[in-house]
Amino acid sequence: MYFHVNGDLVPEQEATVSVRDRGFMYGDAAFETLRAYGGTVFEWDAHADRLSRTCETLALDHGLSDDELLNRIHETLEANDLTEAYVKLSISRGVQPGKLTPKPDIDPTVVVMVKELPRGGTTGTPVWDGPAVVQTVKTRRIPNEAIPAAAKTHNYLNGILARLELQRAASDTYQADEALIRDAAGNIAEGATSNVFFVIDNALRTPATTGPVLPGVTRDVVLKLAREQGIPVEEGTYTPDHLRRADEAFLTNTTWELRPIETVDGIEVGGGPVTDLLSLVFNEYVEDRHYGE
Amino acid sequence: MYFHVNGDLVPEQEATVSVRDRGFMYGDAAFETLRAYGGTVFEWDAHADRLSRTCETLALDHGLSDDELLNRIHETLEANDLTEAYVKLSISRGVQPGKLTPKPDIDPTVVVMVKELPRGGTTGTPVWDGPAVVQTVKTRRIPNEAIPAAAKTHNYLNGILARLELQRAASDTYQADEALIRDAAGNIAEGATSNVFFVIDNALRTPATTGPVLPGVTRDVVLKLAREQGIPVEEGTYTPDHLRRADEAFLTNTTWELRPIETVDGIEVGGGPVTDLLSLVFNEYVEDRHYGE
Repeated sequence: MYFHVNGDLVPEQEATVSVRDRGFMYGDAAFETLRAYGGTVFEWDAHADRLSRTCETLALDHGLSDDELLNRIHETLEANDLTEAYVKLSISRGVQPGKLTPKPDIDPTVVVMVKELPRGGTTGTPVWDGPAVVQTVKTRRIPNEAIPAAAKTHNYLNGILARLELQRAASDTYQADEALIRDAAGNIAEGATSNVFFVIDNALRTPATTGPVLPGVTRDVVLKLAREQGIPVEEGTYTPDHLRRADEAFLTNTTWELRPIETVDGIEVGGGPVTDLLSLVFNEYVEDRHYGE
Repeated sequence: MYFHVNGDLVPEQEATVSVRDRGFMYGDAAFETLRAYGGTVFEWDAHADRLSRTCETLALDHGLSDDELLNRIHETLEANDLTEAYVKLSISRGVQPGKLTPKPDIDPTVVVMVKELPRGGTTGTPVWDGPAVVQTVKTRRIPNEAIPAAAKTHNYLNGILARLELQRAASDTYQADEALIRDAAGNIAEGATSNVFFVIDNALRTPATTGPVLPGVTRDVVLKLAREQGIPVEEGTYTPDHLRRADEAFLTNTTWELRPIETVDGIEVGGGPVTDLLSLVFNEYVEDRHYGE
């Protein structure tokens, strides 16, 4: 496998950064997880916009245009002969003199990693192993006042601690695969790597991004498609109890697309007609954009 | 300069980690900042204990003994012919298959970085440029419920965002050099890289570690020395206003030792007899342990 590091395609084993890179020392880096379908990147403009906002939050002026970044992604896909792929684009503040306080003069570290990821589509196998088993964890989401949730950065320990809780609670017969993380007030924020959707009274509901919730690209596409389908949509504030007694529920992220939720804290929820419809139109949306004439 | 990476001494420019290292991707790593005086590490046992607790929080079972870690530090100091030094010891979860969820089988990345740092002592020049100019920032500390403050990890964006606020607020005539970070309730937590102490009514006061406050090694030594000197000590809950109207105030960390606070939000505070006494006995404490017969 070839990765792109600072403008060069290098074999994976030579893809390294200095131990003094601020990405390694502090997680001082922005990233996007992307998906390539048929050789092109899904919703690139939305990802590029969010990356740009993250870099603004971090005052990380990397100096590369969106086109240059996209070009490096395409070069990496081509070097690995991939059209269906998981892509991670990371930009760290690189090596700087001094300690914690960032310097404005930046020599960024820009990395593109790829991995084959066949598309499930309407007839294939989804990338997830099955509907999600979701468990509420004690670990709470980081408040926006501490680190804005809209910034997608290499500081991911909050999600790792949430996933570790799932491992610690696992038994021979029960193993949750996504953590339901609440905000400080106890309301639903999101999963460790996913946004949460559910259906009550035929309306699609998802936590508002005024809370500590990543504005997911797949989340936005699903909300747009739901509105186009005439499904009532509500972005609000919800407790885990709302999710547990929902008629249907699913998770979204770039890799999973839409993934139905089987159980929440052991209580059956499952997919249903709204989830099925949205999965169908999502697949059509991907096909129209990536596999059309 | 030589760094220690995974058991080998390597020139600094060859000291690298994989871009797939979880330290780089997620800040999934524990660290300690240490100080060597006269060739030996200050308060090694306290640092080793805290590192061990951090690794427990992260479920990062690196498999190395405290003696082995200390040995690598000494090897790095000797390779660089250093006796007075800043030392950073980092242990990341290394490269693992899969994505965010950690796997129990770990091949950790262990890094020792060093840099010369002459000791100020009672007669020399302190490492800090002058008394600290402290400014309250909007960025709040991450609550313990999201990431325990007692864990010293490579997720340092919260402190970086706080320091960036200082840069944005700087003018030709004013530049704060440490951020005063409050907890969610608005009480003082700590500086971006330091613990906060102040004196009111002849008693030494510092935020309790029940809040989102790092249990600093220098903080502990200072508290012990103050008690030995018969100074009343209180660990409590304080607002920035307490600090602004204090008789004296100072910051502590491993590099700065005790650093007087000149101003808080532009209001003069300064050091004083308690700060001077504690600085003196701190220097004696270091001398007794590192430069004695």
